[in-house]
Amino acid sequence: MNLPLGYRYAATFAGIRKVAKDDLALIVSDTLAAAAAVFTKNRVVAAPVAVARKHLALSRGRVRALIVNAGNANCATRTGERVAAGCARAAAEAIGAKVEEVLPASTGVIGVELDARLIVDAIPKLVQGLDPARFQDAAQAILTTDTRAKTAFATVKRARIAGMTKGSGMIHPRMATTLGFVMTDAAVTPAALRPALKRAIERSYHRISVDGDTSTNDMVAVLANGASGLAPPPRAFEEALADVLESLARQIVKDGEGARKLVTIEVEGAESDRAAERIAREIANSPLVKTAIAGSDPNWGRILSAAGNAGVAFDSRRAKIHMQGVAVCRDGLAADFSEEELKKKLDETECVIRFAIRGRGSGHARFWTCDLTEEYVRINASYRT
Amino acid sequence: MNLPLGYRYAATFAGIRKVAKDDLALIVSDTLAAAAAVFTKNRVVAAPVAVARKHLALSRGRVRALIVNAGNANCATRTGERVAAGCARAAAEAIGAKVEEVLPASTGVIGVELDARLIVDAIPKLVQGLDPARFQDAAQAILTTDTRAKTAFATVKRARIAGMTKGSGMIHPRMATTLGFVMTDAAVTPAALRPALKRAIERSYHRISVDGDTSTNDMVAVLANGASGLAPPPRAFEEALADVLESLARQIVKDGEGARKLVTIEVEGAESDRAAERIAREIANSPLVKTAIAGSDPNWGRILSAAGNAGVAFDSRRAKIHMQGVAVCRDGLAADFSEEELKKKLDETECVIRFAIRGRGSGHARFWTCDLTEEYVRINASYRT
Repeated sequence: MNLPLGYRYAATFAGIRKVAKDDLALIVSDTLAAAAAVFTKNRVVAAPVAVARKHLALSRGRVRALIVNAGNANCATRTGERVAAGCARAAAEAIGAKVEEVLPASTGVIGVELDARLIVDAIPKLVQGLDPARFQDAAQAILTTDTRAKTAFATVKRARIAGMTKGSGMIHPRMATTLGFVMTDAAVTPAALRPALKRAIERSYHRISVDGDTSTNDMVAVLANGASGLAPPPRAFEEALADVLESLARQIVKDGEGARKLVTIEVEGAESDRAAERIAREIANSPLVKTAIAGSDPNWGRILSAAGNAGVAFDSRRAKIHMQGVAVCRDGLAADFSEEELKKKLDETECVIRFAIRGRGSGHARFWTCDLTEEYVRINASYRT
Repeated sequence: MNLPLGYRYAATFAGIRKVAKDDLALIVSDTLAAAAAVFTKNRVVAAPVAVARKHLALSRGRVRALIVNAGNANCATRTGERVAAGCARAAAEAIGAKVEEVLPASTGVIGVELDARLIVDAIPKLVQGLDPARFQDAAQAILTTDTRAKTAFATVKRARIAGMTKGSGMIHPRMATTLGFVMTDAAVTPAALRPALKRAIERSYHRISVDGDTSTNDMVAVLANGASGLAPPPRAFEEALADVLESLARQIVKDGEGARKLVTIEVEGAESDRAAERIAREIANSPLVKTAIAGSDPNWGRILSAAGNAGVAFDSRRAKIHMQGVAVCRDGLAADFSEEELKKKLDETECVIRFAIRGRGSGHARFWTCDLTEEYVRINASYRT
């Protein structure tokens, strides 16, 4: 774990969660960092999302800190914006920054007032605890129904990138899904950071789904403070950033609520990348495909049927489907395969579905989802209570 | 049960299902009946759908019979169209009709060749068994994972309408969802029947969802043989037809795979009916809303979040949500209600979610879905095996 220079982290239990587990994280860059973020496309937007967006505009993409709480989404709340802005202000004062240089983020239950005092009161202790090595503590504090922390690291031309994310349910790629924070010590301007993040998100967070629900609190932010003194070539930086985001996104799906299997869906031979993506997304969102994977059932008819629902024209007689490398459907018809052997292969924790259309198209897409299990239902039938 | 005049029904076990339960139904009108049908919008279309569509065009909407099998969808099959056309021809010959006057339909597993001989061999027995009173036997024979037969009846100006349907999973309204057959002895021309069916479907089959998956075999057909000698006013006929289809559609959702609850979603105050429908559909398709209902959890935040994902602009501060008649969210904020009492009300087998936007819009929509239970996952993790 090679952490970027010039960042410090802290986490504490502020009393927002019902259980005594860290629920507040602070991430501070020692100097002003270039920042870019993508936010949920949900029409119902949580207060911290609105405030973070405003701060990012006011600061012209120059940010010092992120203040993040779990246990309460601060969405559909009377005092929402006041609370989010107040917490950002308290953090800003404590570290000697302007209020707009702090981005707030929240995750948790919707529709319950968030008590700003819990956060404001915890900030002195948080700031005291700031440490360059407490990256993992912060990554732990932002989790909700996640079963494990999710982090990813990369170096690009000796500059370092480190990311953390949370998310397990209400996962569907509309904009940024869930919360994700990436810190780098590379020197990148805000103007260069924004398009790099946008393109990298396209290949990562926009290609995952657990349950087709898009959260009101989604946000992925990148900070680049240049503390390394290194300015990697833009293309190489974007590649490394995309690798980190892809790793984080895959970890979210792998830890999908109730999930036992990570499912990679590859689509090839569509008329365009966009068409391939629509097919991949439809397969990834089909509860029938996801339950079949849960049952290790090589039920390729459901995959073909889901693909047919993507609103993309293709000749099903040219469709070929592989599961775990085994051809199960050729020319839209059953292929000859050993169901017994394939069932065994589908018991593995990583499954690959390849959907190819024979023809002239070269559109391709990759998408990640997870299996749909009884545990997903159990978790979500009683999340609040 | 007041059956329409001039129809006879039969059912038998032809050996298509693995278990010895009727799997083949024949519905015959004594005279040529005006017919209209709507078919799946899935790009992957089962052979009987293609053949039925062709027959309906060739016969110019004049039909004598429907031949329907369960246990095999005859989709993604090498011999599909030949088998479907062959079965229609055998039935046509046996009742003295032209081949294009018989519409075939199939439901069941995808990707397994359907043995035409099983059906052709069973037809003499089927025809012998034809009886005006065996409506329920036919309604039983077309079921797959359904736990009960689904029928609905209406009279309009003394003319009779009787419908049957099947469907429990792979239910999502894109065109007609699942199989549905409606017989009437009213005198209606094919030209009048088509738009009446289209509009009635809009209010019924197009407003239900069990799991968001659209089948490759969907088809709803209406036959009107005029045997009553009565020609009800078009508007009254359409109303009665819509009532029958709505009843059938609701029965499908109520018998949704693993479902314990029928959920009605009402949306009011949107900018247009279309906008209201999109919001209702998004709420109905949210696994998080559906699992909350399964757990009798008044988690209105998930309803608000789902509505926010419908791609429809609305001010969440004007949103009001009722569950079982209890206001749970007002002006986009938590309302004051007894969680204890509401939980009890949500234990009922019928739940109503009302989502209203305060303002000038008058767009409204009604949609039906069911709760998402562990049983849904159990059923679908092992459907084939």
